[in-house]
Amino acid sequence: MNAEKIPDIIIGRLPVYLRAIQRMADNGIKTTSSQELGEHVGISAAQIRKDISQFGEFGKQGTGYSISYLLDKLKEILKVDRKWDVALVGAGDMGHALARYQGFTNRGFQIVMIFDNSKDKVGQKIDNFTIEDSEKMVERIKSAGIKMAMLTVPAPAAQSVADKLVQAGVRAILNYAPISLNVPNNVKVQYIDPATHLQRMTYYL
Amino acid sequence: MNAEKIPDIIIGRLPVYLRAIQRMADNGIKTTSSQELGEHVGISAAQIRKDISQFGEFGKQGTGYSISYLLDKLKEILKVDRKWDVALVGAGDMGHALARYQGFTNRGFQIVMIFDNSKDKVGQKIDNFTIEDSEKMVERIKSAGIKMAMLTVPAPAAQSVADKLVQAGVRAILNYAPISLNVPNNVKVQYIDPATHLQRMTYYL
Repeated sequence: MNAEKIPDIIIGRLPVYLRAIQRMADNGIKTTSSQELGEHVGISAAQIRKDISQFGEFGKQGTGYSISYLLDKLKEILKVDRKWDVALVGAGDMGHALARYQGFTNRGFQIVMIFDNSKDKVGQKIDNFTIEDSEKMVERIKSAGIKMAMLTVPAPAAQSVADKLVQAGVRAILNYAPISLNVPNNVKVQYIDPATHLQRMTYYL
Repeated sequence: MNAEKIPDIIIGRLPVYLRAIQRMADNGIKTTSSQELGEHVGISAAQIRKDISQFGEFGKQGTGYSISYLLDKLKEILKVDRKWDVALVGAGDMGHALARYQGFTNRGFQIVMIFDNSKDKVGQKIDNFTIEDSEKMVERIKSAGIKMAMLTVPAPAAQSVADKLVQAGVRAILNYAPISLNVPNNVKVQYIDPATHLQRMTYYL
């Protein structure tokens, strides 16, 4: 397996496979086929076989894939066979929803600190978290060695916060602010912007 | 312009261009180039020129694109030169955050009704919205002629709610539940699942 050679578009599908396979495992299913997995995720069986074969031989012809083996291997490939600490910046409505979201820990992530620049919010609690002052963000993230962050600040603030996150050593940012970020090549950004997703669908209506 | 012939991957980039161009317009900028736009969105100038040329001639060689013209055309292509009514299903933390989100109306969307199946929540207010009973969902959506919905229910409930939305006439679903949905071919689904996005980045860390 050579990380450099796998196209990003394939990497993007692996978490979707992992999610479906985890669900099968949770339902007590032991084996699956590319056909069955394809029906779950809406991707062709041929594409799934091709994607998975990039990482070696996972299944035997005719007997399908072992769910537990595939689960372990996909987690290993995506490096979520461990738990990543994540910093959350922006304690507005979306920040609150993410802080309280129960769906991270069983998928390799835990929010460990939450920052906001509003003096009214600093010191307040969201469940077990205490909102911390953004002014201490760089120092806190750096000393904790955190590599991942979620950004839920307003768009006009997003680039300057992203710059500080990069300065603090963050290498992966999930950006909820509706603006494209400029970051160095060694930093990954993923975007979540519901209006963009909605607009992608209206074209077809 | 022939909608059938434009690849979906290009359609997926248009909302990102629109977002960047809207921001330029808000900042009083009158013209832009594929080069400048590319720097904003992190896509090559050549790709942008190619994408935009699919829909006709937008710019003159050497003088760049008129922002206001491009804005109008992109909105028209994506059909957000109008306002789409959207139903929201699931009044949990994420549903609350979306109901209160200010970023939809200036991008072509307005949430007009919110449903939940919890008797405790039905009748409660989220800002100006009153949470309605899911049992009335199909009838309400059908009689209002709503074509778009956002789904923020727990994963185990998502498929059955999606089935009801389709039955009610919804043709585009933005799904926040971490599960792939099976819908008829004439229904579009987009997914927002933060853990999937995070896993797509850990691969590179």
